[in-house]
Amino acid sequence: MSNNYLISPNPDDARLTKRVEGIDHEGHSIKMSVPVERPLTLFLNGQEIVTMMTIGDYPEYLAVGYLLNQNMLHDDDSITAIDYDADIECVVVRTAMKTTFEEKVKKKTLTSGCAQGTVFGDVMEKFEDIVLSGDHIIRTSWLASLVKEINTTPSLYLKAGAIHGCVLAREDCPLLYMEDVGRHNAVDKIAGYMYHHEMKGSDKIFYTTGRLTSEMVIKTVQMGVPILVSRSGFTAWGVELARQVGLTLIGRARGRRFIALAGQHRIISDLAAEDDSTV
Amino acid sequence: MSNNYLISPNPDDARLTKRVEGIDHEGHSIKMSVPVERPLTLFLNGQEIVTMMTIGDYPEYLAVGYLLNQNMLHDDDSITAIDYDADIECVVVRTAMKTTFEEKVKKKTLTSGCAQGTVFGDVMEKFEDIVLSGDHIIRTSWLASLVKEINTTPSLYLKAGAIHGCVLAREDCPLLYMEDVGRHNAVDKIAGYMYHHEMKGSDKIFYTTGRLTSEMVIKTVQMGVPILVSRSGFTAWGVELARQVGLTLIGRARGRRFIALAGQHRIISDLAAEDDSTV
Repeated sequence: MSNNYLISPNPDDARLTKRVEGIDHEGHSIKMSVPVERPLTLFLNGQEIVTMMTIGDYPEYLAVGYLLNQNMLHDDDSITAIDYDADIECVVVRTAMKTTFEEKVKKKTLTSGCAQGTVFGDVMEKFEDIVLSGDHIIRTSWLASLVKEINTTPSLYLKAGAIHGCVLAREDCPLLYMEDVGRHNAVDKIAGYMYHHEMKGSDKIFYTTGRLTSEMVIKTVQMGVPILVSRSGFTAWGVELARQVGLTLIGRARGRRFIALAGQHRIISDLAAEDDSTV
Repeated sequence: MSNNYLISPNPDDARLTKRVEGIDHEGHSIKMSVPVERPLTLFLNGQEIVTMMTIGDYPEYLAVGYLLNQNMLHDDDSITAIDYDADIECVVVRTAMKTTFEEKVKKKTLTSGCAQGTVFGDVMEKFEDIVLSGDHIIRTSWLASLVKEINTTPSLYLKAGAIHGCVLAREDCPLLYMEDVGRHNAVDKIAGYMYHHEMKGSDKIFYTTGRLTSEMVIKTVQMGVPILVSRSGFTAWGVELARQVGLTLIGRARGRRFIALAGQHRIISDLAAEDDSTV
């Protein structure tokens, strides 16, 4: 299969992993690569928003994706600059409209103690208004190919473990493959890339190594992607939200096996029961 | 092996999982159990602190453990009441000293936008003052027994998947086994139990299904536990923090195999190289 990736992991990037020494279970000295994890503090205009733990590639996409997925950037606003400073581990996003938004955040944090809690209410309001595209489907042959290609793509996961991955795909072609120590960061980096490149979500498939929780469902729906796939399992609220909004939710996707708990109408079975030739 | 658990998962508790219908990869109808995930809003005295997503067992332990691990409860303060209201999904922790702390949080949230970011600074200050007990060791035979017993204990993980587990053990005896959709919640519930029952951490071993990130290392050290074990992998900052404070960090623990990247001096090899009889 040809490589169609626009972005894929770079396990050779020396900034992203570190060699450390230790011992194995028999007491022998070993050396292994582990992913780095560094703080990145995000500012929106003059205001400090959050400190994220990230591997640190694509800080600009991460910043924009975080703000989008937290409903802190709106469709009628525009980004005027993104300044990243590696030395002080900060990224500053500047937008055209400043005052309205900052007042809103200020009020929120005063009443809640943590942006996470209150922003959630806002996110749910937007969630309920979203209509996902009904036109797009997923063939079981595409799914089997995607899972195989993702699992064999060179990655920090294969090199160093202990990292989550997310992939945005169209039909059987993976396009964007982001990794991060935090699963939410990997998603946000994809959202930031999509925003920057004006890439639409309606004809895409979103794959994650993480579980299909409410948070994951909400983020996928916010990106306008109608199909969410994971190699991990489900939570009840994730399933419920997916059904509310008509998201196709496919979990435990390994090889050609999977379970779908929502939006089954988008799934087209085109693999014969015992035909393994395409995977 | 006898069951020494003080608390262990209750997969038969109907509130913790939900049966949902779906299809498998061949299009056949299936039914499966998935863990629930519900919001719980935590108040400290009059102030809303955070909304957590949790399976909802042990809300009182979760509340206290969260406050402890965020340095929002101090040694010289005392809890006067914990009120949990299932209908409105809230838990309120009341303490003897009210004013000082609330002023502090108010100031923090004003300057940061999210408690997560600023509290972190505070937590690191405390972290650097902690001295872990040097007296306690872990035998490789204990570790192999623990891993086996934890993996075969009836759990929500075995029933429904998509959940993290944490275990507090002494020598080869698991004592507390908590699960939650959020790994941090499972840790916090154990911290809350330890606080309530005045259980010390210095002679214990902490096991987690999650990765050995900086967050996990910090929480373990705050509980005074000198040995942290995971079946998952490491991040570089997790390793660095563990080395700073002398925490024994054991990852990729499966069967009798493991890798240790910090605090190897506490590990006693008492399993013969090819002897599988004890596991």
